[in-house]
This record gives sequence, C-alpha cells and structure tokens, in this order.
Amino acid sequence: MLIVMTAQATEADIERVCRKIESLGFRPHPMPGANRTAIGITGNPGPVDPAEFEDFPGVAEAIRVSKPYKLVSREVKAEDSVVRVKGVPVGGEEIVFCAGPCSVENREQILEAAHAVKAAGAQLLRGGAYKPRTSPYAFQGLGEEGLKLLAEAREATGLGIVTESIDVEVFDMVEDYADCVQIGARNMQNFSLLRRAGRAKKPILLKRGMSSTLEEFLMAAEYILSEGNYNVILCERGVRTFTDHSRNTLDLSVVPAVQKLSHLPIIVDPSHGTGKRERVHPMSLAAIACGAAGLIVEVHPAPEHALSDGHQSLYPDQFAEVVEDCRAIAHLLAHRGAREHVHA
Amino acid sequence: MLIVMTAQATEADIERVCRKIESLGFRPHPMPGANRTAIGITGNPGPVDPAEFEDFPGVAEAIRVSKPYKLVSREVKAEDSVVRVKGVPVGGEEIVFCAGPCSVENREQILEAAHAVKAAGAQLLRGGAYKPRTSPYAFQGLGEEGLKLLAEAREATGLGIVTESIDVEVFDMVEDYADCVQIGARNMQNFSLLRRAGRAKKPILLKRGMSSTLEEFLMAAEYILSEGNYNVILCERGVRTFTDHSRNTLDLSVVPAVQKLSHLPIIVDPSHGTGKRERVHPMSLAAIACGAAGLIVEVHPAPEHALSDGHQSLYPDQFAEVVEDCRAIAHLLAHRGAREHVHA
Amino acid sequence: MLIVMTAQATEADIERVCRKIESLGFRPHPMPGANRTAIGITGNPGPVDPAEFEDFPGVAEAIRVSKPYKLVSREVKAEDSVVRVKGVPVGGEEIVFCAGPCSVENREQILEAAHAVKAAGAQLLRGGAYKPRTSPYAFQGLGEEGLKLLAEAREATGLGIVTESIDVEVFDMVEDYADCVQIGARNMQNFSLLRRAGRAKKPILLKRGMSSTLEEFLMAAEYILSEGNYNVILCERGVRTFTDHSRNTLDLSVVPAVQKLSHLPIIVDPSHGTGKRERVHPMSLAAIACGAAGLIVEVHPAPEHALSDGHQSLYPDQFAEVVEDCRAIAHLLAHRGAREHVHA
Amino acid sequence: MLIVMTAQATEADIERVCRKIESLGFRPHPMPGANRTAIGITGNPGPVDPAEFEDFPGVAEAIRVSKPYKLVSREVKAEDSVVRVKGVPVGGEEIVFCAGPCSVENREQILEAAHAVKAAGAQLLRGGAYKPRTSPYAFQGLGEEGLKLLAEAREATGLGIVTESIDVEVFDMVEDYADCVQIGARNMQNFSLLRRAGRAKKPILLKRGMSSTLEEFLMAAEYILSEGNYNVILCERGVRTFTDHSRNTLDLSVVPAVQKLSHLPIIVDPSHGTGKRERVHPMSLAAIACGAAGLIVEVHPAPEHALSDGHQSLYPDQFAEVVEDCRAIAHLLAHRGAREHVHA
Repeated sequence: MLIVMTAQATEADIERVCRKIESLGFRPHPMPGANRTAIGITGNPGPVDPAEFEDFPGVAEAIRVSKPYKLVSREVKAEDSVVRVKGVPVGGEEIVFCAGPCSVENREQILEAAHAVKAAGAQLLRGGAYKPRTSPYAFQGLGEEGLKLLAEAREATGLGIVTESIDVEVFDMVEDYADCVQIGARNMQNFSLLRRAGRAKKPILLKRGMSSTLEEFLMAAEYILSEGNYNVILCERGVRTFTDHSRNTLDLSVVPAVQKLSHLPIIVDPSHGTGKRERVHPMSLAAIACGAAGLIVEVHPAPEHALSDGHQSLYPDQFAEVVEDCRAIAHLLAHRGAREHVHA
Repeated sequence: MLIVMTAQATEADIERVCRKIESLGFRPHPMPGANRTAIGITGNPGPVDPAEFEDFPGVAEAIRVSKPYKLVSREVKAEDSVVRVKGVPVGGEEIVFCAGPCSVENREQILEAAHAVKAAGAQLLRGGAYKPRTSPYAFQGLGEEGLKLLAEAREATGLGIVTESIDVEVFDMVEDYADCVQIGARNMQNFSLLRRAGRAKKPILLKRGMSSTLEEFLMAAEYILSEGNYNVILCERGVRTFTDHSRNTLDLSVVPAVQKLSHLPIIVDPSHGTGKRERVHPMSLAAIACGAAGLIVEVHPAPEHALSDGHQSLYPDQFAEVVEDCRAIAHLLAHRGAREHVHA
Repeated sequence: MLIVMTAQATEADIERVCRKIESLGFRPHPMPGANRTAIGITGNPGPVDPAEFEDFPGVAEAIRVSKPYKLVSREVKAEDSVVRVKGVPVGGEEIVFCAGPCSVENREQILEAAHAVKAAGAQLLRGGAYKPRTSPYAFQGLGEEGLKLLAEAREATGLGIVTESIDVEVFDMVEDYADCVQIGARNMQNFSLLRRAGRAKKPILLKRGMSSTLEEFLMAAEYILSEGNYNVILCERGVRTFTDHSRNTLDLSVVPAVQKLSHLPIIVDPSHGTGKRERVHPMSLAAIACGAAGLIVEVHPAPEHALSDGHQSLYPDQFAEVVEDCRAIAHLLAHRGAREHVHA
Repeated sequence: MLIVMTAQATEADIERVCRKIESLGFRPHPMPGANRTAIGITGNPGPVDPAEFEDFPGVAEAIRVSKPYKLVSREVKAEDSVVRVKGVPVGGEEIVFCAGPCSVENREQILEAAHAVKAAGAQLLRGGAYKPRTSPYAFQGLGEEGLKLLAEAREATGLGIVTESIDVEVFDMVEDYADCVQIGARNMQNFSLLRRAGRAKKPILLKRGMSSTLEEFLMAAEYILSEGNYNVILCERGVRTFTDHSRNTLDLSVVPAVQKLSHLPIIVDPSHGTGKRERVHPMSLAAIACGAAGLIVEVHPAPEHALSDGHQSLYPDQFAEVVEDCRAIAHLLAHRGAREHVHA
C-alpha cells in the first residue's frame, strides 16, 4: 500500500497519515519527491483498506502496490534517487568513479593508490580491510588497521571511502571509518547484515549476488530501505553462468532493467564482472553507454604484486584512460539526450 | 602438509609432533582414524619442509596436500566420518531421516509434526525458528519462542533437533536449544558465521549455496573444521540453473563427487531441491540410490495451511512411504554391496 | 483441439471425424488408447469450434488443449506409451538397457562390445557411425562402414541397434540399418531433422538439448509426432550449468516431470550426464530409482584405448554390476508399488 | 601446424609449400595477410615435423598451433579480417547495421521495412524466409516466396540481404538469393550445415549457440573455414542463464574475448539478446562501446502486428536513433583511439 499526498499537502497532513498508519499496526515510510510526498506502508498485521485514508486532508490517493518490493520501486518514487557519498552525488548528472585496490595491504600501497586514482579522476576510493575469502587460509585483510589507513588516505586526498563490512560484528567499526559501506555479493542475502545496514547513517553499496535474480536483488535493497536507510547504491558485478571465458558473466542488461523498476542508482564493477584486466576498459565503456551511474574499478599501483585480484586490477595509467573515455561517452550521450532515452 | 603417524604411534608421539607444528607458527589438527592418526597443518607463516618431521618417532610420512581444502579431504582422513546428532549416527550404516515443517508456527503444529514424523520413521526433527526470507515483509519465524517449542517437541518425542542459525547474533541461543545447527544455502559463504560454527560444540548441517561449486562447498566446510569443529554434515539442496520445471536443479551427482574427495557425510534435501511435493518421493529414492547418507524433508501436518513452503511439504503419510521405500533401497544396496561400490 | 471418442465408437466413427478435420484444412492424429481413441488436431488454418464435432456419432467430447504441445501430452493420451525397438518394449514393466561404445571403431571392437553388453544383460546396442564432433579435425565416425558393422553385430547377438543420424542427408541410410534412430543433443532443435524423423518408420531416441527447457524438449518430440511417427523415446543426458565437478549436470528431476506431462517413455544417459566413469554406477541407480524406463550407457571393451569418450565408458564387468543393481531396484520398487507411485 | 612465409615469398614459393603439404596427406590453407602469407595445415594423417618445411624457399618459420581452432585464430592471421557483404565491409573502420523484420511476412511489409531501415542508416536488410520455430504449429516462414520478396527489396533499395538457411536442403536456394547466409543459434553445432556453409560462395553470419562456450563458438566457425570459406561474421545474441529479467543474457564481454583470439569480425544482436524492445537502445550502445563491428537488429514497420518477435522489434524511428547514437559513439572512440585500445 502506498499513500500519495497532493502537491499541496502540509507537513501536518503527512504526520497525520503516518500516525494513522502506526495506529493500524504498520510502519510508515514517508518519501519526499520533487513534487509530492509518497508514504510507503510496511508490516504484517493484515490487509489495509485504502478507504481508510482517502478522506484524510492532503491525500491524493491510496494505491495497492503490485510488486513485492515497495520502497525501492518507481511506483513509490518516480524520480531517480541521488545518493551522496562524502558529498559526491551518485546517480546524478555526472558519472562517478570509485577506484582502488582489492585489499588495503600497507600504508605505502593505499596512499599511492589513492593519489593515483584521484589524479586519474576518481572521486571515491575503494579498498578492503575485511575480505571475504573462499579459503580460510587466504589473506583475510588488515582489519581495523586497514580502516585507519583508508582514513589516512582520505585525509591525504579528500576522496570518499567505500569499504566492505563482512558481518554485523564489524559493522560499527566499518561505519565509523567509511563514507559508504559495501555489502558484498556473497552477503547479498545475509538478511541480518542487510537489516544492520538499514540502520546505518552511512550510504550502502549493495552488490548483486552471484546467482541473484533481479527481484531478489531489489528485495535485498528493500531490506535496507525498510529499516529506514534510503541511501542505497546498487552494483552489478557479474553473475555465475556456464561460460568460462570470463570469471563472471557481466549482465549489463540489468542496468536498464533496474532503472525501469527502481529509483535507486546502479553502478557497474567491470573488474569482478570480467576477472581480466584487458577486458576492464571495453566493459567500462559498455557499462556507461548503457546507462550506469558510475563504475567501481580495481586499480593497484603494482598489480603484479597485489595480495589479491592482481590479474584483474588496472595500472593507474590504464584507469586514467578508462575515466577519460567513459566521461567522453557520458557527455556525448547527455548532449544527444540519449542517456535520458536510455533511462526511459 | 599432512603428517601421517604409524599405527604404533603413541599419544606422546602425536603430542610431540603437534608441539613442533606450533613452534613453527602453524596450527596442528590431529585426526584419529581407525588405524592411524593423521595431523593436518594449517596457517600462513610460510612453507614447511617435510624433512622437519620425518625423524620424529611415530611419524610414517609427511606429505604435501595438493587441494586447497585440507581437513575435509580424504587425503587427510580416508575413512568416512560419522557425525552423531543426539546419538543418531549420520554417515554410518543406516540412512537418516530429518523431517518436519519449514517453520515452527505454533505449539500444536510442531508437536503434531514431531509425533507424525517420528511415527513415520524419522530420527531427527527439522523446523525453522529463524527464517531467512527474500522479503522483509514475509514471516521471519518465531525466534526464541520457536526454539522453546522445538525443545518441547524433543522432550515429547526424543527426536534430535536440527534448526537454522541465520547469523552470529542468534548462534549462541540456537546452539543452546539445538542438537545440530543448520547453516542455510544463502549463508554458505557467510564466513563469519562459518567461523562461529567452527567454535560450536554442536554438529553443523551445512547446505550447499545456490551457485556454489564443489570446491567452494568443501572450502566452506573447511572454514568450520579449521576452527576445530569436525562434526559437519553436508547437504545438497539444488542449484540454480536455467531450468524452470523445478524450483532448483537437484545436482545428485555431487553426492558421489563429495564422497570421493571428502570424508564428511552428505545428505540430500529433495524438498528445496525440487520445490514440488509430487517430486519429493522419486527424488528421495534417487538420492538414497546414489549413496546419500540420509534426507532432510519438509513434512507438515497440513501443508495447505503452512506459513511457508506448503507446496513442497509432504503430508505425513506420504513421508512414511518415502521412509519405507528409501530404507528398502538402502538395505537392498547394502546387502548387494552396492553402496560400498557407490562410495568407492 | 482434441476429439475424445466414446469407448463404443467404431472405426467408421473415427474415420468420419478424421475426414471432417481434413475438410476444415487441419490434420487429424488418431491415437488409440486402452479404452478409447482420441484424435489430435494440428495445423494452422485458424480456430475450430468444438461444436462442429459434438454431434458426430461416437464423439464423447471436443476439448481445447491448453499446452503448446499436444500429441505428446497426457491430456491427449493418458496411458504410458510403450515403444518397441526390435521387439524390446521401452516404457513397459521391465527396464531397458542400451549399451555399447561411443563410436564404432572397427569390427573386432564392436563385436566384442556387443557380445559383452549382451552377456551383461543389455537388450540394445548403441554405437555411433556418424559422430557430431566439436572439432572438424576430430574423428568423425566410420560412416556407412560403421553401420554395416553394427548390422553384423546385430546378426551375431540379436541385439537391437540404436545409432545416431546427424543430418537429413544420412537419415535414409541410418534408418535402413538401425532399429532405432538417435537424434543427438546438439540436434534437438534441428527442426528439419526432427521432421524427417517424424516420417521415419523406425522409432526415434530424442536426446535433450544441453540448455533445453522441459517445454522445448517436449516440443521437439511434438515435431516428430506431428509428422506421424509416435514412436519416440526421450532421453535425459545432462544439461549445461555453472558446475564443474561433472561434464554436465544430470537433471534427474526431469524424469518425473516428463512422466507427469507426457505419455512418452524417458530413459537416462548417465555417461554423458556425468562424464566420469566412476559416477555412472551411482547415477544409474538414481535414474532407475526415480522412475526412468531404462538407461543408455557407454561401455567399451577397452576404454583406455577408445577413440572417443573413453574416460566415461564402463568396462563390461562394471556394466554388468550396473544392470544387476538397477534390476534389483526396479523389481523392489515394482513389488512395493513404488514405481507406480513415482509415475503418479 | 602453421607455415609462416617471409614478406618476400613469391606465389611460387607458396604453391610449392602447399604441394608439399598435400603430398603428406594434409590440406593447405593459404591465408594472405597485409605483410606476409601464412599457410594453415589441417587433416588427420598424423603429426608433422616442422623441419620438413624449414628449408623451403620463402618459409620464415613452421610453428605448432596450441589451440584447437587454427584457421580462425589470431595465431594464424594477426590482422582483423574484413568480410564484404554486397560490397559492405564488416569488421572495417565503419560499424555496420543489419536491420529488418524477424520474418518476411508479405510484399508490403518487407518493402516498407527495407525502405525504412535504409532511410535510418542500415546497409544490410535482415528477414527470415525459413524460420526455426520451437513449435511445429507456429508460422514457419514463406520459404522461397520470402526469398523472392527479399530480392525484390534489394532491387528497390540496394541493401544487401542477410537471411537464414535452416538446413542443408534449402541452402542452395538461400545462397542463390542471399548476400550473406545466416546460421542460427540452434544450428551452431549442426556440423553438416556448417560444412555446407564452408563450401558456399557467400559470406556466413554465424550466431552463437544458446549455451555455447567461446571455444565451441570458434570451433563452429573453424568448421566453415576448414572447408574453404573464410568469410565468416560471428554474432553474439545472448546466452541462456538463470536470469529471468531478459529473454537471454547478452554476454557482451565475449566481444573483446573473440577479438583477442580470432581475426574474424563479431557483431551483436541486441534484439534476441534482450528480448525487450526498450532494452535494444541501451544495449546497442553498449555493444558498440565495447568494440562490436556492428549490430543486427529487428525492426518492423508495425511491431504490434508482427507474426513473430514483435515485442522485441523496434519501430523504424527508434532504430534511426539507435543508428545515430551508435555512430556517434563509434566516431568518438575512433577519434580518441579507444576502439583500437579496445581491440588490443
């Protein structure tokens, strides 16, 4: 159920509707839009009668929502959401580049990487302090030490920090240091972690699970929004299929699919999406061409010595070319009106 | 690296080798077998020279292990492991049936289900108190209240309890009530949860992830064993493919594949593996015929009223037929020596 | 559209309905059942009004068929079809074994294989004279010479011959020599070949395509039946998924799925379905346990010298064990009434 | 084995090497390049000793080829192949657009479509006269009548004709009328059809199979080249995976993968690749951005009345926008040198 307020509705009107929703045992989610506010309703007490709301002042209409996702849906919020990470708008007019090494390895490496990706045009720095690894015997990240080094890199460069929280236990600490907390592909249906992310004050970067359908992806985001955190950035990073020519199969067509159904911004990870350095450039261009709001790319000052994912990490000068070519495409399409077309 | 002791090695010999391993900065994992003890070595300090151990009393040989998984490997332990859940051996001569509803719904339902599955021949009761659900608005389980009802059902029937822990936060509580703690498919690579399971005193039922390779499945188990809990039961529950005639594609061929590589027992979940009540019977027979150590089956006293998964839950009398037919096949194959053949 | 005749309908009644169907520009497919005859209607001239037939003598009812497949459907023919290959009933009470080498290599090899599989209990001999190979530079089969050797093996052993026709060009020749013509997985949607198979006098073994859905599989069979050849045996041989522990993923759950929707018999190919010799035994047992009408298995007198598929071919004595264990399971389940249960 | 001639080698030198190859029982495939000629060797008589050729005049070196594909490989021919279809270069500097309806339906429709796609900027006209359909009861195409209408459309517009041959039987006729013969996805491993295509005088458009690996795709092309027809255009059209948000999963990352391994041009079919009209525009841009040599797009004068694939067919004015935006991207990237980068 969704209550759509009129353009003239006052704060008091909205407040009144929210209290009514609560009195029925549900939870209201007011979502202000450019022209009007919509109020989502979640909770399980049972069906609600739209007629309950239709006579309230400021209510334009009460509509049943047909999809299992509600708060992430364009039915609830027609305008694109713009999520700000340390002031950088993701989902706005400019495409965004988040870049850096797979793992924070040491002070020199992360500072060098941060300066290099900033010089190349990135606005955000990625780097893992806690790493989910298939093997218990593989390098698991530097932990809090890694977070401190990321904070130092932020100080030095002004870049916003995007880093992963692998569980609820370390979430508080990651949230303290990060500007945006990443939920990894393996945790896309770790519902406890999603709920914690929903109570965070920082924006969340949610990666698509390896075998996640579009609906499951949006429902995972719905978990976060349903707890009150509407600042979610989605990320396509490749899915698992029979193909063996790439590490994962980058499903770029999910970009326009998400944009049709949801107001949330979606970016693309061509590094995990292909698993091969040489494919990052062409697939980055493709991602921007089909409408992605930005990229998250693995860049390492010396990929050949990386502790993880070196084979798919770009050299800084390669990344600089990716940024320039992507910006040129984005500007071209914006100028032609094609990016709007793509979103429509 | 694996140290294989001679059949004549004493406890003191074993202890001496373990201390040497620790002195090198590694962690020893003694694994007693029918004829000899093997000692696995895990940890990252660097390569070890087999010659370091060859002169120790009681050491038969020191061998490099070629697979990324070690403790779960047959290279480390050749005999089948038998995991006891409330005294019920899983992976032994008799096949095991774990049955019950998807979710604990209320006292009457779970008690009725428990009596019914016991009467039909089950040794273990399944039932979810914490449910991982795709939608935040779906029934999420009764929580601790559900665990208490499961304990009451155990009191009433003597059945061992298998129930899921969906995160680290509730693990302590689930471990308190359960006889075996389940890690669900969506959490198969929730490494923090796997580590917690590795420190549990109770056996773990580890379900294969929806798009998990065999190696990833065994590595997930390796996380648990590497923390010291060797009581792990694997479970095939279907993988995600292009096929649409069943909810998941039950990959039964992974049963002999696991048995070749690992000493851990593997059971099959034909309910999630097919998603259709009518297919549970034939696929149960198939699972036992290809060597599974048992089944975990959804059974509900009144599937048409179940809060979740009703369409794939058996009626109690259907389950009774499954048990009888499966036992008949298992006894036939045991008598013919075919089950050993299957394992070989 | 389907015209169901009464149990008392005469041949003349049936003939009259068929002529009416033809006069409307359609094609009639009379399908005699145990109690009554049903007449399928295919063709494109447009919709038919059931009322056109309801007054005809002997017509019980005229019903619209809801599935895209018609002639293969249980809606059209409720009883299991039994397809006879050189007198051997496939889909009847006894399970059927078709065995032999991947390719006919020479006279000694095929004769030795034929005698061996017969001694082990096979009723049918498989062996490729025309081989579809991924590489143009790989062994493509002996062609007509191979067919002659198969005929000689039939003379020597009495076994029926199952061999593949890879295209329309060689179909006449293959049909001349074979007792059952195989359509391979790569040709499952070679519609020209399916039409030719539909005009054959010999039964057809239709293998499921590597990424074929159940509906596409049944529609491929429908092509054959729609041309007038109702003697079609379906075969599950594994589908292509992300898993890498086996050559293909054997989708055994399609066996009861087919049996629910179609009257055609379905057998299983555990050799291609797993790609590993050691898994053929367990997966054969599983196939029979879930209701397959039989198996097609690669058996070679000396697999280590086979020109193709040696790694997945059984030694004759291994095959003998497969046959005995499968028969024991089939008899057990028949005795318990479980196989009927499985089909229901 | 591959014989690389020196830049100074004469026709006589080349001829001499070819005769030597034939005398050894193999088949020579001379492939002239910009600077030198390479001669591929195919056939099965046994291993060849490179030393046999090293003393021949004009021979630079004789090298063993490591991949199972030879003639399609960049190891054999380093420069991009450009395939001309009625004079239109595919794989050259300009991107190519092949557009038109799924099926030729009637004279008015195909002529209207041809004029429309030409006006929008297409150089080639697509349209099926023989249609491979999942159901035997679906519209199967107009056959030769459709080919005649395509020829008439060529007369009227000057567009080159690309149309499918669904089997060997109709190949002669299709080849007579077409400027480029399409092999469809379902026939990618119809090896008899591939061989026939290899003997054709016209270029071949080879679509990737639904579950084809990259190696299988290249091996299918190798079948065609091995018979002597080197004019092959590859086409990515989406693969079958678990995803359900699109008809197929467009695997764009195969474009740079093909370009690394093979000299053959590759184009993309965003219509079948997505199955949804609204996604054709964004995925077309993505395809060009990652380096595709062109597009094959379904365009219909009145998609809502199309006999097949209407839901994924563009309106002519939508196609005109696709062409303009794609050309703008291609020119941008060419100007920046990024397309070369992509190919490198």
